[in-house]
Amino acid sequence: MKKKKIFEGKTKKVYEAENEQDLLLEFKDDACSQAGAKNAPLKGKGHLNQQIAALLFRLLESYHISTHYLRDVSDRELLAKKLDMIPVMVMVRNVAAGTLVKQYRLQEGKELECPIIEYYLKDAERDDPMINEDHLVSFGHATSGEIREIHRLASKINAILKAFLRRRDFQLVDLRLEFGRFQSRIVLADELSLNTMRLIDLRQPKQEIIDGDAAALAEHLAEIRSRLLSA
Amino acid sequence: MKKKKIFEGKTKKVYEAENEQDLLLEFKDDACSQAGAKNAPLKGKGHLNQQIAALLFRLLESYHISTHYLRDVSDRELLAKKLDMIPVMVMVRNVAAGTLVKQYRLQEGKELECPIIEYYLKDAERDDPMINEDHLVSFGHATSGEIREIHRLASKINAILKAFLRRRDFQLVDLRLEFGRFQSRIVLADELSLNTMRLIDLRQPKQEIIDGDAAALAEHLAEIRSRLLSA
Repeated sequence: MKKKKIFEGKTKKVYEAENEQDLLLEFKDDACSQAGAKNAPLKGKGHLNQQIAALLFRLLESYHISTHYLRDVSDRELLAKKLDMIPVMVMVRNVAAGTLVKQYRLQEGKELECPIIEYYLKDAERDDPMINEDHLVSFGHATSGEIREIHRLASKINAILKAFLRRRDFQLVDLRLEFGRFQSRIVLADELSLNTMRLIDLRQPKQEIIDGDAAALAEHLAEIRSRLLSA
Repeated sequence: MKKKKIFEGKTKKVYEAENEQDLLLEFKDDACSQAGAKNAPLKGKGHLNQQIAALLFRLLESYHISTHYLRDVSDRELLAKKLDMIPVMVMVRNVAAGTLVKQYRLQEGKELECPIIEYYLKDAERDDPMINEDHLVSFGHATSGEIREIHRLASKINAILKAFLRRRDFQLVDLRLEFGRFQSRIVLADELSLNTMRLIDLRQPKQEIIDGDAAALAEHLAEIRSRLLSA
């Protein structure tokens, strides 16, 4: 299949698929999710993330959540529907970490009474500034009906994934989602993987946060594979 | 009246009133609303702001909006009800200025299709970080019912003031509000003055923004007084 690259990010490449209505997502081994940090490649990371994404997209579809996932193509590639993307990152937080600690003085590791959903405008030059629902409507990125739907879907996706992970003794710290439109419905896009979720392994005495950082991930790779991907 | 000072900010002092249920707000001549800037005092600024605040609080009360305003005490002082304050600044924006231009690339001076309401946590050490409705609920600052009410009131207050000012050939650029609880109702607090609103004088050829900055305000003082305060 001849592939035309549309986008290359830190953790994945996106190609136009043979059918122009579709996209091919390729998960990279060698990158890390933290801006600026540099890591050696981690063999198997791309494959693991592809497997996690496919598993979680299928899980969500079984709960009647529309996702862009179509099918696996190779052990590092997924086929997905091309959407009319909304240029916003939706962050769902269950545990105080990162900006919640630095900006809002929450105690690191504190479990939140109810999840917090935040929106960040995709604008790398401005460091993806935080944005609220009124901004999104006023700037023309989404209608208020679409934003209500995105908020509802983000809450539901978080609840499903949190429960799924908890049964495997992982705590879902936070989760980054992107959405688009397909035939005027709101559909989950992007990836669902260790690049976009942060977990705590509850079976580890230190219970450190596992994220998509290759160095941090190396020790956990086999453990995650066996606990997440085995039925 | 013996006065116990509770708070002194850049633009006003707040005292406990003789009746401990109430507060005395004193408007200062000598300060400016812009953090960091230093200006010479502007004689008459405190009195003008007291008159504007009293006028606008009474205007809002006539539209059935509860405010903390009770009555004028002197030409720079108001008596107000003491509220259980919500530690949040509510910003209502009608025109692109300030952070909307710097953070979100809007064109300076562009009138927004619909007003934007933003929340900022009052935390001077953290530069009053922007916060959203989920944060406010999760951090325990307000219930979701209270936030819906605050959003509704902020929209309504903005619409009333915008129309009132427009009839006097001033455009309301943005507006900063604070709210509190009184007998479990949401009540408008703080001040409503040139310290917390930014206006454009539509009768001036330059149509520059008028804010609480004493130097910028000096030229406009007489004009504002005659157009705003005369029936």
